[in-house]
Amino acid sequence: MKIALAQLNYHIGNFDLNTDHIIRHISLAREKGADLVVFAELAVCGYPPRDFLDYSQFLTHCEAAAQKIAKHCTDMACIIGLPIKNEVVKGKDLYNAAYFIENGAVKAVVKKALLPTYDVFDEYRYFEPFNEFQCIDFKGKRIALTICEDLWNINDNPLYVSCPMDELIKQSPDVMINIAASPFNYRHDEDRIQVLSGNAKNYKLPLFYVNQVGAQTEIIFDGGSLVFDEEGALKAEMKYFEEDLQVFDLDEIQNVKNKYPLLERASDISQIHDGLILGIRDYFRKSGFTKAVLGLSGGIDSAVVCALACRALGAENVMAVLMPSKYSSDHSVKDALDLVKNIGCQHEIIEIKAAAAAFDGMMANAFGGLPFNLTEENIQARCRGIVVMAMSNKFGYILLNTSNKSECAVGYGTLYGDMCGAIGVIGDVYKTQVFELARYLNKDGEIIPENTIVKPPSAELRPDQKDSDSLPEYDILDQVLFRHIEQQQDSNQIIAAGFDEALVKRILKMVNAAEFKRYQTPPILRVSPKAFGMGRRMPIVGKYMD
Amino acid sequence: MKIALAQLNYHIGNFDLNTDHIIRHISLAREKGADLVVFAELAVCGYPPRDFLDYSQFLTHCEAAAQKIAKHCTDMACIIGLPIKNEVVKGKDLYNAAYFIENGAVKAVVKKALLPTYDVFDEYRYFEPFNEFQCIDFKGKRIALTICEDLWNINDNPLYVSCPMDELIKQSPDVMINIAASPFNYRHDEDRIQVLSGNAKNYKLPLFYVNQVGAQTEIIFDGGSLVFDEEGALKAEMKYFEEDLQVFDLDEIQNVKNKYPLLERASDISQIHDGLILGIRDYFRKSGFTKAVLGLSGGIDSAVVCALACRALGAENVMAVLMPSKYSSDHSVKDALDLVKNIGCQHEIIEIKAAAAAFDGMMANAFGGLPFNLTEENIQARCRGIVVMAMSNKFGYILLNTSNKSECAVGYGTLYGDMCGAIGVIGDVYKTQVFELARYLNKDGEIIPENTIVKPPSAELRPDQKDSDSLPEYDILDQVLFRHIEQQQDSNQIIAAGFDEALVKRILKMVNAAEFKRYQTPPILRVSPKAFGMGRRMPIVGKYMD
Repeated sequence: MKIALAQLNYHIGNFDLNTDHIIRHISLAREKGADLVVFAELAVCGYPPRDFLDYSQFLTHCEAAAQKIAKHCTDMACIIGLPIKNEVVKGKDLYNAAYFIENGAVKAVVKKALLPTYDVFDEYRYFEPFNEFQCIDFKGKRIALTICEDLWNINDNPLYVSCPMDELIKQSPDVMINIAASPFNYRHDEDRIQVLSGNAKNYKLPLFYVNQVGAQTEIIFDGGSLVFDEEGALKAEMKYFEEDLQVFDLDEIQNVKNKYPLLERASDISQIHDGLILGIRDYFRKSGFTKAVLGLSGGIDSAVVCALACRALGAENVMAVLMPSKYSSDHSVKDALDLVKNIGCQHEIIEIKAAAAAFDGMMANAFGGLPFNLTEENIQARCRGIVVMAMSNKFGYILLNTSNKSECAVGYGTLYGDMCGAIGVIGDVYKTQVFELARYLNKDGEIIPENTIVKPPSAELRPDQKDSDSLPEYDILDQVLFRHIEQQQDSNQIIAAGFDEALVKRILKMVNAAEFKRYQTPPILRVSPKAFGMGRRMPIVGKYMD
Repeated sequence: MKIALAQLNYHIGNFDLNTDHIIRHISLAREKGADLVVFAELAVCGYPPRDFLDYSQFLTHCEAAAQKIAKHCTDMACIIGLPIKNEVVKGKDLYNAAYFIENGAVKAVVKKALLPTYDVFDEYRYFEPFNEFQCIDFKGKRIALTICEDLWNINDNPLYVSCPMDELIKQSPDVMINIAASPFNYRHDEDRIQVLSGNAKNYKLPLFYVNQVGAQTEIIFDGGSLVFDEEGALKAEMKYFEEDLQVFDLDEIQNVKNKYPLLERASDISQIHDGLILGIRDYFRKSGFTKAVLGLSGGIDSAVVCALACRALGAENVMAVLMPSKYSSDHSVKDALDLVKNIGCQHEIIEIKAAAAAFDGMMANAFGGLPFNLTEENIQARCRGIVVMAMSNKFGYILLNTSNKSECAVGYGTLYGDMCGAIGVIGDVYKTQVFELARYLNKDGEIIPENTIVKPPSAELRPDQKDSDSLPEYDILDQVLFRHIEQQQDSNQIIAAGFDEALVKRILKMVNAAEFKRYQTPPILRVSPKAFGMGRRMPIVGKYMD
């Protein structure tokens, strides 16, 4: 039996596009000799559809799309994921399901049992967990078909009390197929291989795994669909961050060597680079926009975002706006212009002095001679926000936010100022990783000017300001943040690991105090195991324990 | 047996405060002769603690607080809600639990079975559902203790396949006690009475129900704890929007008439009024702030927010900033000043002309003579945003957002302009309800100037602008929005109800296109069954079906 894995990029709720795309790939798989072509979890509507699922018309569209796909699947079989109604009165009204379609009709329906409800996942918000399991017979083989999380219950501290494959294995299947929508983070490719290999080995069955690819606002799917033999050995690995379709012969999987591609593990930074480019590109494409604008300060964050945007959208579609103030150093404008020259994007220089002076005058009476402080720094950042948003409104550019994860974490940024934007490009990338990204971008020649990389970071909102005036050094800060955010360590644990107590408490206090700011930041492209946004849900008026 | 219900206002994660508050109310209940005092769901840590639950120190604090409370509960019993660890390896790591404490020690532990995971609720994100049930014997009575949602599975389309009381009833309990954290919306008091009365009648048992009171950022708890007899008759009703403690004699509940307070159902608008005042007050109190600032335009939205803020915080703590532009009509300033006079708050007048002119000059080169459009309207709104944020930064005022729900829905507002603020006061109140609120505020004498109520709504960002230039009339718009948002109707259903097809499609398109704006708005005080924010989670780049 020949199995095709179709690793496609879907658009949530865009039924015409998704349906046509699936049908085209059924034809392609047929041409390549496949007996069965497998599409991803919720392929018909895209993942995650979120509260669109509350609308009955959305479900009607899903079913209609599946029926249309079935009509085009006449002399072979396919597997597609979609939400379906739960006809039982008790329990949630929907299932996260898969149709096994053969000869133009739905031959079997499989429903997901384990519903991820953590981090960015909300599946129990919509779906009833299923607890009856039935293999599917096709061309003399018995298939154990599961949906994503159904295979993820094999670690030391399982999240679920049941395990679907423990039931399905009793029916003596010949092969496992798992359809997934498994979001990218720079650590996830290794986890995925380990968990899936563990399943293959555990159940002594070959395993075909298909993932989505493409970004849905903040969530990026990296593809990387996989095939394992019954000893858990990885036999094939599909492309990362790109669509792909490959056909495998089930009968020879156990014995093939080097027939199918196996990739070297990419570095964290190269994965982040590729993920962010896909994230930017899909945000624009799926929103129907082509052009981006951003403020270019001469600092490293905006330089890196500008370079990524040019790679994602084409330099001709990126407008960099330089907005010097009276506190900007001479090298800032020069560094920014060097980048523009290296990269070939459009640029404008718009000084903000006049607006800042206008606000000084307007506020003078109310402020009654109080000294310059954070207020005036924020006014400058917000004047820049108005300028880039004006460029956005006038020309239809979409504003890219350039805040990094270290800043977002400690609240070192101005709400409605440098925290403006439609999408946060590097809000899940710590400052120390931003430096690595800059070096990575320069690996084939200078893109990010050397001076931008080596000079001390500064917001340049008052004379001689440095980030290190207000913040700990980034190499320490980022380590503490990683332990607190990614690893969910509290102050005791971080201090026990050898960090200074006062420093740790100061950092954690800043993180918690900045919750109200993060609530209003743009969605952030997620590349780490724990990003700010929908995957990290914190009280705002809550008091954190210290 | 005498049962006290303690309806208290907790602060999430503020263990010292919550613990002291609970201990004081144990003493008070003891003084009033109670044998048992009942506190709410997750009383020890406040509800909802959200991802604070990911931190082990948070759970350690919960357990320590419970043990401290137990020590103070020596010659009586109490029930407190708290999260506890699930010692079984499989499944989620926590339970949403209740301790039954008697004579200084935990005598029984009850765990929640039905975990609300919809709208603003995320309980399955953290908790394992429990499925063993045991009544508690105390003073010769057998108590069936359940936690909030455990009693909410009795409608026509139950969300859960099991029903805890169906198990507990087999043990022949004498009384039901339910501890809750049941958020307010203006329709919820009636639902609550109906559901709980249905339980009492169904199981033929008296029912004591205690709720939290107070606001946790956007979620408002209204109290209104209840007692029913075994026929489902409401025998006592505690205060709404205030703390309360009352003691009831279990043995006489069946026969008492008019011994305990029973309240008249309050109108929707009076509930919204009281809820918003509590919401504002608790946001400030729990964040450690006292003073508010807002932009006062002369229009009805900011007038109503200003009046509510003065009631919540005291007029002396409210700063209204009038920010006329060249497009402001004369009556705008007069209407705003009339309100200030009526209400006695502080005010400043800061004209935005100079800043708007500065931006016109700064952008002239880049804009190259393109005509005035939405861009310049937005610049004005954003200049106002800078002014009120400057007042906030300089003086420590917290900015109140004044956007109404109709505007939020269709995106009729400027991001980083009038959509700024720390908390959205009327973002869950449709424009037509804002008018009702204004009338309600005026019921004992004019607060909101009559001209503010009767003049046609306008953003005053260009000459002779009216809201109705861009939007359908609010009475139609709000009906369509209510059907789509609160009732989850799609276009087919709304059109079938008699609304114009083109109009409905235009409105729904606006609602979906504004998703990216709503993502960045402040948290909104929730007063309806479906508010924007954490209770409504929509894709941003998703394509909504037509």
